[in-house]
Amino acid sequence: MAVYTHIDEDQLDTLLAGFELGEVKALKGIAEGVENSNFFLLTESGRYILTIYEKRVDPADLPFFLSLMDHLSHKGVRCPVPIRDRNGEALQEIAGKPAAIITFLDGQSPRAMTPARCEALGRVLAELHAAGQDFAMRRVNVLSVDGWRTLFARSRESGKGVEKALAAEIGAELAFLEREWPRELPSGVIHADLFPDNVFFDRNRVSGLIDFYFACTDLFAYDVAICINAWCFEISGEFNITKSRALLRGYRERREMTEAEIEALPVLLRGAAMRFLLTRLHDWLNQVDGALVKPKNPDEYLRKLRFHQRLDGPQAYGV
Amino acid sequence: MAVYTHIDEDQLDTLLAGFELGEVKALKGIAEGVENSNFFLLTESGRYILTIYEKRVDPADLPFFLSLMDHLSHKGVRCPVPIRDRNGEALQEIAGKPAAIITFLDGQSPRAMTPARCEALGRVLAELHAAGQDFAMRRVNVLSVDGWRTLFARSRESGKGVEKALAAEIGAELAFLEREWPRELPSGVIHADLFPDNVFFDRNRVSGLIDFYFACTDLFAYDVAICINAWCFEISGEFNITKSRALLRGYRERREMTEAEIEALPVLLRGAAMRFLLTRLHDWLNQVDGALVKPKNPDEYLRKLRFHQRLDGPQAYGV
Repeated sequence: MAVYTHIDEDQLDTLLAGFELGEVKALKGIAEGVENSNFFLLTESGRYILTIYEKRVDPADLPFFLSLMDHLSHKGVRCPVPIRDRNGEALQEIAGKPAAIITFLDGQSPRAMTPARCEALGRVLAELHAAGQDFAMRRVNVLSVDGWRTLFARSRESGKGVEKALAAEIGAELAFLEREWPRELPSGVIHADLFPDNVFFDRNRVSGLIDFYFACTDLFAYDVAICINAWCFEISGEFNITKSRALLRGYRERREMTEAEIEALPVLLRGAAMRFLLTRLHDWLNQVDGALVKPKNPDEYLRKLRFHQRLDGPQAYGV
Repeated sequence: MAVYTHIDEDQLDTLLAGFELGEVKALKGIAEGVENSNFFLLTESGRYILTIYEKRVDPADLPFFLSLMDHLSHKGVRCPVPIRDRNGEALQEIAGKPAAIITFLDGQSPRAMTPARCEALGRVLAELHAAGQDFAMRRVNVLSVDGWRTLFARSRESGKGVEKALAAEIGAELAFLEREWPRELPSGVIHADLFPDNVFFDRNRVSGLIDFYFACTDLFAYDVAICINAWCFEISGEFNITKSRALLRGYRERREMTEAEIEALPVLLRGAAMRFLLTRLHDWLNQVDGALVKPKNPDEYLRKLRFHQRLDGPQAYGV
C-alpha cells in the first residue's frame, strides 16, 4: 500500500488534457500495489486508476504489460484495460515518471481463501494461460531460476549480509533447482504474482485480476506453483491440501496439465518458494529509512520451501 | 496513509445490511488519514468513505465528531456527512471497532499552498467558526495548553527519553505558555488540524474540509495559529509572510478578530507549534515496529517554535 509520488492538480490537468475523460472530480491515493503509486481517479466520465510506475518497473517493459491487459481483456479475462489518449497512446508521463490510466475494476480481494475460491482461482488461472496463447509479445522472467543467483548475491553483498547457515541452505537449494528445473514444460504468458491481493471476488466467483506488472513468458505450471504457495498455506504456516486439491482441480478443468507438468510440481513449488524467499530477503536486508511499505518477512517463504523439500511427490498436493 | 484494519466481505455485508445503500461494488483502502483506517466504498447507490476508528480515537468522542459534521454541513460548510442506518444511527461497529460511513467528498488536497489558497482557507476557517456557534455539544481540547505537560512527560518516560538540552528548552517554553496563555479569547468549535491534507480545492476555491477527528471547543484564534503554522512555512523552513497575510485577510473578511485575539497571535503561534512538536516527539519516540505510518520528524515544529520565539509582535505575521 503506497503512494510514492505526489502529484498536484496542474500535473494532473496536463496529463488529462490529452484524454477525453472530462473534468477531474477527485483523486485519492489508494493503499494498493507495493511497487507503484496508485490513485483512484474520478472524472466526469467515470472511475479510473492512475498508476505511476516507480523505479522497480523497467519502462521498457510497460508496452508488454499494457498490451497484455488489452489482449487478455479482449479474450474475456476480466482485468483492467489501459485508456488511450487522443493519439492512441496508453503510456504516459507525469511528474517525470511513466504512468498510465486504466479502467477501475469493481470488486474486492478476499480475506478468506476458501477451497471454493481456490478452485475458482484455478479455473481463471487456466483461462488466463489459454487467453495469452496468441499474444505476440514476449518478456523474459528475470525472477525465474536463471536470475536467482544474481538476486541472492545482491542480498549477500548488502550491508547486513546473510547468516552463514541460511546462505549455505539457500546455496544448496539453488544448486538443486538449477539442476532439476524442468525447462521444457508448456509455456506462455503467466501472471507470476497472483496473490490474493490481486484477485477480486464476487462471492465465490472471480470478478477480476489486477496488477500484471510481473507478467512474463514462462512455464504455466510455475504460475500454478506460485498460486499454491500463495493461497494454500494457512496463516499458522500449515499447508492445506484441501485448498491445493481444489486449486488444481479448478485449473485442470480448464486446461489439461501434462504428465510432465504434474511430475514437476514439487520442484516448481520449491522454485516458487525460492523466488519469493529471495525477493523478500533482498527487500528485508535493504530496507530504506522512511519507506512507506514495510518489507514482508522472508521467513514465511523459507518455511514453505522447507515444507516442500520434505515431500516426495505431486500427490502431496492433492493431484 | 494507512489501513490498519482489514475487513472481509462478510463483515462488510453485515454492516451494510443495516443501511439502504444497495450492493457493494468495490472497497479500496485509501492512503488518507493517519489515525484511522479509511476505505473508498462504492455501492449501487453511490460513493462513500468507510472509516474504522482506531485506538487513538476515543469512542466517547465519536458522537461529537459525527454530529458536528452533520451540523456544519447543514450550515453550508462543505464537509462529509455521516450516513445513518435504518434506525437513524450513524455510529457503527465492524471488526470489533467503531466505524462510520460518510459521504465521499469530491476534490483533492493541494500540493501548492499559494497565497490565493491561503486566503481562501482563511475565509472558510472563519465560516467554520461561525457555523459552529450554535452547535450544542462541547469537547475539551486535550491537546491544548493544559494537556502539554502530561504529553511531554510521556515522551520523557519513553525508552529513548528526550535529550537534556531539548527537555530544558521545552520545559522553559511550557512555563512561558502556561503563564501567558490567553484563556479568555472568543471560543467555540475549532477544527484543530486543518493541514493541507484536510482541505480540498477546486482551483483556488475550497471545495471541502475533511477529518474532523481533532475538532473540539477551544479558542478560534488558536485554530488560526494552527493554520498559519501548517500553511505559511515553505518546505525550506522559511516563513512566508505573504501567505500568512493572505490567510489572516481571508479570515478577517468573514469573522472580525478582536484586538485581544490579534495581540495574542504570537503566543498562540508558539503554542500551536508546541502542540505539534509534542505530539510528533511522542510519536517519534514511540515508533512501533511494523507501523504503517512513518512518524513525522518533530524538528520541523521545533524550528517553527524557535522562529516565533524570536519575533516581537503580531505585525510579523502580516496583520
